[in-house]
This record gives sequence, C-alpha cells and structure tokens, in this order.
Amino acid sequence: MKKINLYEAQDFSDTAFKRLLVHDSPYFKIINFNFRAGQELPIHSHNVEGQLSLVVLEGEGEFLGKDGARLPARAGDVLVCDIAEPHGLRAATDLRLLVTIAPPI
Amino acid sequence: MKKINLYEAQDFSDTAFKRLLVHDSPYFKIINFNFRAGQELPIHSHNVEGQLSLVVLEGEGEFLGKDGARLPARAGDVLVCDIAEPHGLRAATDLRLLVTIAPPI
Repeated sequence: MKKINLYEAQDFSDTAFKRLLVHDSPYFKIINFNFRAGQELPIHSHNVEGQLSLVVLEGEGEFLGKDGARLPARAGDVLVCDIAEPHGLRAATDLRLLVTIAPPI
Repeated sequence: MKKINLYEAQDFSDTAFKRLLVHDSPYFKIINFNFRAGQELPIHSHNVEGQLSLVVLEGEGEFLGKDGARLPARAGDVLVCDIAEPHGLRAATDLRLLVTIAPPI
C-alpha cells in the first residue's frame, strides 16, 4: 500500500503547469497535473493501445478534443478516451487533474 | 471520448453505500462509491494480478488494510495497492471514492 495526498504533494506554478508522477507500474501510470488559470495541456495523442481517464479534482476549464472539440470540465468530471484519441485540457481557473493511463506508456 | 460528472451521476443512501460503474474496458475498470458517514467497504482482496487506486474526492475516513491496519483517508488522497492485498474503506463523514482497477476484474 502506498498513499499520497495530492493537495500536499504538489502546488501550482505561474510559469507552467506542474506534473507529478504519482505511480508507475506494469498495470497503470497515475499522474497529477496542476494548472493555473489559463494554462493548458496541449492536445496530443499516442498511437498505442490503451485508454486513459482524466479526473478533475478541483477547478473549471475545458477538455480539448480533435478538430477543435471542446467539452466543459469541472470538479467531479471523469473523461475516458483511447490513448490514440487526441486529448488535452485548458484551465479557466486553477485546476487539479488526475490522469490514469492503462497500460502505462 | 466519454464524460460523466460524478457529483451529478450518483448521490448517497442512508441504507447502504452506493456503487456506480463509471467505465469498464479491457484496460481498466472505474467505479465510484459514495458512503454516508459510518458506512464501510469491508476489507477484501482478490487473488489475481493487477493493482488498483482509491482516490478520495470528498470527505474523511480511514483506509483499511490487513491485520487491522488503518490509514487516515481524506480528500486528495490516492492509495495504490495490489488487487491481492487486503483493502477497504470506512467513512467518518459523507465520502466520495473513485476506484480504478487495472487490469479489470
């Protein structure tokens, strides 16, 4: 068993979003991203098998998808997509995101 | 892409904790549990390969481990353990938990 508190483990930065590797194993990879308002995880994808979940722990913004697609993002939202599917996030307020990738890439 | 808001999708019940299957695929299974204060996911384990994460979205309580182990649980906590390792949770306040199991069982 391994426990981490995300609110203690990582804060925010005005210069760029922050990234913390929470866990990495043969089964999944878990990453915490903290965004200041206006910061963005640019849309991207990887041509591999698997899926990922994006969980918004705090804050508001938009999920980014292919062809300029936008979906509102707010606390309690869980977005699931294929790793091969373009995805990203833009924060409108300070925002904490938890990403789980299975299998890990 | 599939999006769900956990705060809208599931509430609480005084009679027993509530369970919502958020996602199930060959890669991972995602389940949301909502506990009223005092409700409990009894300690259990499965003798299979893989790991799971327990993310506390809201509330306070205790993670349960083998041999009576207790770990404080509160919003922002991420606990990772093997599926084969005994795990559970007891809520001290109303508590929202997100569980991700990889590979799914």
